[in-house]
Amino acid sequence: MSNETFPDEKSFHMTPDEFRRHGHAVVDWIADYRSRVESYPVLSQVKPGEIRAALPPNPPARGEPFDAMLRDVEKIILPGITHWQSPNFFAYFCSNNSGVSILGDLLSSGLGVQGMLWSTSPACTEVETHVLDWLVPMLGLPEKFLSTSTGGSTGGGVIQDTASSAALCALLAGRERATNFASNQNGCDGRLVAYASTQTHSSLEKAAMIAGLGRSNLRLIEVDTNFAMRPEMLARQIEADQRAGLVPCFVCATVGTTSSNAIDPVAEIARICRQHNVWLHVDAAMSGTAALCPEFRHIHDGVELADSYNFNPHKWMFTNFDCSCFWIADRKALIQTLSILPEYLRNQASESGAVIDYRDWHIQLGRRFRALKLWFVIRHYGVEGLQHHIRRHVELAQRFADGVRKDDRFELAAPVPLNLVCFRHKGGDAANQTIMERLNRSGDLFLTHTKLNGKLTLRLCVGQTNTEERHVARAWQRIREEAERVA
Amino acid sequence: MSNETFPDEKSFHMTPDEFRRHGHAVVDWIADYRSRVESYPVLSQVKPGEIRAALPPNPPARGEPFDAMLRDVEKIILPGITHWQSPNFFAYFCSNNSGVSILGDLLSSGLGVQGMLWSTSPACTEVETHVLDWLVPMLGLPEKFLSTSTGGSTGGGVIQDTASSAALCALLAGRERATNFASNQNGCDGRLVAYASTQTHSSLEKAAMIAGLGRSNLRLIEVDTNFAMRPEMLARQIEADQRAGLVPCFVCATVGTTSSNAIDPVAEIARICRQHNVWLHVDAAMSGTAALCPEFRHIHDGVELADSYNFNPHKWMFTNFDCSCFWIADRKALIQTLSILPEYLRNQASESGAVIDYRDWHIQLGRRFRALKLWFVIRHYGVEGLQHHIRRHVELAQRFADGVRKDDRFELAAPVPLNLVCFRHKGGDAANQTIMERLNRSGDLFLTHTKLNGKLTLRLCVGQTNTEERHVARAWQRIREEAERVA
Repeated sequence: MSNETFPDEKSFHMTPDEFRRHGHAVVDWIADYRSRVESYPVLSQVKPGEIRAALPPNPPARGEPFDAMLRDVEKIILPGITHWQSPNFFAYFCSNNSGVSILGDLLSSGLGVQGMLWSTSPACTEVETHVLDWLVPMLGLPEKFLSTSTGGSTGGGVIQDTASSAALCALLAGRERATNFASNQNGCDGRLVAYASTQTHSSLEKAAMIAGLGRSNLRLIEVDTNFAMRPEMLARQIEADQRAGLVPCFVCATVGTTSSNAIDPVAEIARICRQHNVWLHVDAAMSGTAALCPEFRHIHDGVELADSYNFNPHKWMFTNFDCSCFWIADRKALIQTLSILPEYLRNQASESGAVIDYRDWHIQLGRRFRALKLWFVIRHYGVEGLQHHIRRHVELAQRFADGVRKDDRFELAAPVPLNLVCFRHKGGDAANQTIMERLNRSGDLFLTHTKLNGKLTLRLCVGQTNTEERHVARAWQRIREEAERVA
Repeated sequence: MSNETFPDEKSFHMTPDEFRRHGHAVVDWIADYRSRVESYPVLSQVKPGEIRAALPPNPPARGEPFDAMLRDVEKIILPGITHWQSPNFFAYFCSNNSGVSILGDLLSSGLGVQGMLWSTSPACTEVETHVLDWLVPMLGLPEKFLSTSTGGSTGGGVIQDTASSAALCALLAGRERATNFASNQNGCDGRLVAYASTQTHSSLEKAAMIAGLGRSNLRLIEVDTNFAMRPEMLARQIEADQRAGLVPCFVCATVGTTSSNAIDPVAEIARICRQHNVWLHVDAAMSGTAALCPEFRHIHDGVELADSYNFNPHKWMFTNFDCSCFWIADRKALIQTLSILPEYLRNQASESGAVIDYRDWHIQLGRRFRALKLWFVIRHYGVEGLQHHIRRHVELAQRFADGVRKDDRFELAAPVPLNLVCFRHKGGDAANQTIMERLNRSGDLFLTHTKLNGKLTLRLCVGQTNTEERHVARAWQRIREEAERVA
């Protein structure tokens, strides 16, 4: 190789000292943001196109100073933010974070490792496997999900990006188990059928489309008056499909549906799945976190019979997006479903079974060191700290529900097992729509709606890291004020 | 709601002041890490299980101080890191990052927004759309990929997690276009066929399995002596499949294959796809970045005829993982493929077409504000700065290739169009395996292998942010030293 040096040795990279200085400024900006977040309207009030109009039409030919970017975050970006980290955010499901999680994620960015194979950073894989093993007893999950489980099969956990992807992987594994891996080889043949309830998250419909089953082969099973799946209807449908020559391959049961937080009867569903040899996946995306507290652990009854299970620390467990934990009882079924092995990724230790290569556990090949933030969160809070804050959120939601019960202008629209309250003004859909729109436009709080039994229903989800009693009390006060106005 | 306060008002959250203090420490740690990264063995030298053995078997009941975690990162984690950010990392494809990208990502963690819908943070969507529009002229991509394009269809870009997911989405859109959305409705029927070359990334095989086509319906088209797809073989195969009553739906052309950086003849492939109305996706995961420089922009010849295109700023463009940019010429085809619309996600502005809801552009529902880091990278470097460093990497790889050409113990195993050099010692597979293992075990550098024409081939990819002439020169010196030893 030639030894002549480059005539032009300039560098455009940020120097370590600049990184230090700007990094401190960003940390301070985030600390300030977190302190003042209540001062912003929770739901962004900008109009479509307003943010883009403030951005230059062409990319910069030359670099700009970092301070200019930070100023633009303040001036251009902040008005376009819907503040998920505001304690007055009660919409959808929460997606909370925490200081310690942000710092864990920052370390992951700094290390910049890509953990597709064990060898491409053993710590990235081993911390992940270990922390997911920690969570098994923390959540009262069955021992078969441990990476160290023994017996007929070996389980283990993996961090996925979202519950949507986890459900897709579970569906694929179920599809392959039902066809003895023939679908992977020859494609789907239109005979595979999957099952969820009418209240199951829409990602299941998306997964059925993606996986080549087709949405018409996803049976949406009726629910009971509490919006939980009716197991006898599931059994009936599976049997009818079998009689019709179809191949039932997958059931998704939900612990805490998105609409109303309904909890499907997992144990009964599981017995039906066992009987018909159908893969059972349990989606506990938000609500699984509640099982940290022994008094809520009953939500996991029956999970010991499931094939796979998922919950999202990035929803309610103070871990910033993305971090979705997925466990499987028989990891070989998952790996055989998703494994491909080109020469440039060959790896002796993995082929001998001595290590885990997580690239075979999900859709993507590349993966970030996400376990770091989860490890940090568990260590910072300890089991005790996590339990404390989860209990508090549930207690706040229950108090809000009590308020609704005692006000005869309002009614609860569904049971309130945990931290989500579905309620409505008795004045009908238009009144509820108006109340919601006025509240959200005021910026004082943000809540969203669903439909239950055909009626527009307001949802208040308590789960943002810093939501305290005063925030929930004020939300209830503001809701009653707007109710006065529509009356 | 009751006004009684909680008897137990304690909080386990990190206070803003603690966040500031610990945050500064983490920033400093990363600055130090980046400065001393060359002092570590590039490939982690730990044994399977060694990291886990250093972790306590049970989760902590009570919280631990932050300093303890940072100490464990140093003591337990670092030995288990394969240093992707070392300038001596030449393995796989690079996955580089930069100070400014790390800080952009940190801001995203701090804001903690979830951009599934426009309304859940308009800035998250609009900055993404805008920056992806910036990249279209920056990379010499066709105007039809602009979100503002007009004519028969409207295009646009989206950030995906990885090229694997982007290719899967493209395959799904092609599948649906070919079946007039009947596959989404009724599932696949075993007649759909997709095409790639024998050198295409393994994620395409995975995508064919996931999407219900089956790996036997992914045709691997032969390549020429430069490892590029032979278009006449593609045309012949498509025609044979059509005659057999099958339905060709998708072709993936690669700009810079993973094995050898071969560049498929996109324009010729595109003409065949047009003729047979087959979706053409172009995967330029690493090499697309080279098109920032006008002198390399020819790699995108023919992309103007493609339906979709993808490259990963998280590989070679100084943007930390994950950030994979995906463009589509007709966004309606993608949205119609992936859209689902439950009541709890309804959104008037989106249904009227006034805004983009990115949840319908990929597999996942939830999404992080990834555009922030990409916006920061482009603004910090400017087009000029990005071009400078990309040119330098290509030049370094070319010089290394010159060294190989001049040393009669070695040979190049493939053309070197950009920054990846495929070469081998003439002593045969065992010699090359030994050279590679000794180099990697030494920790001085890290490179990986592939097989080309059945022969074990070493790969040296120049793309880590801080790789300079001295690192490549030393790599060549170490390679020659190990060659002496095997001789």
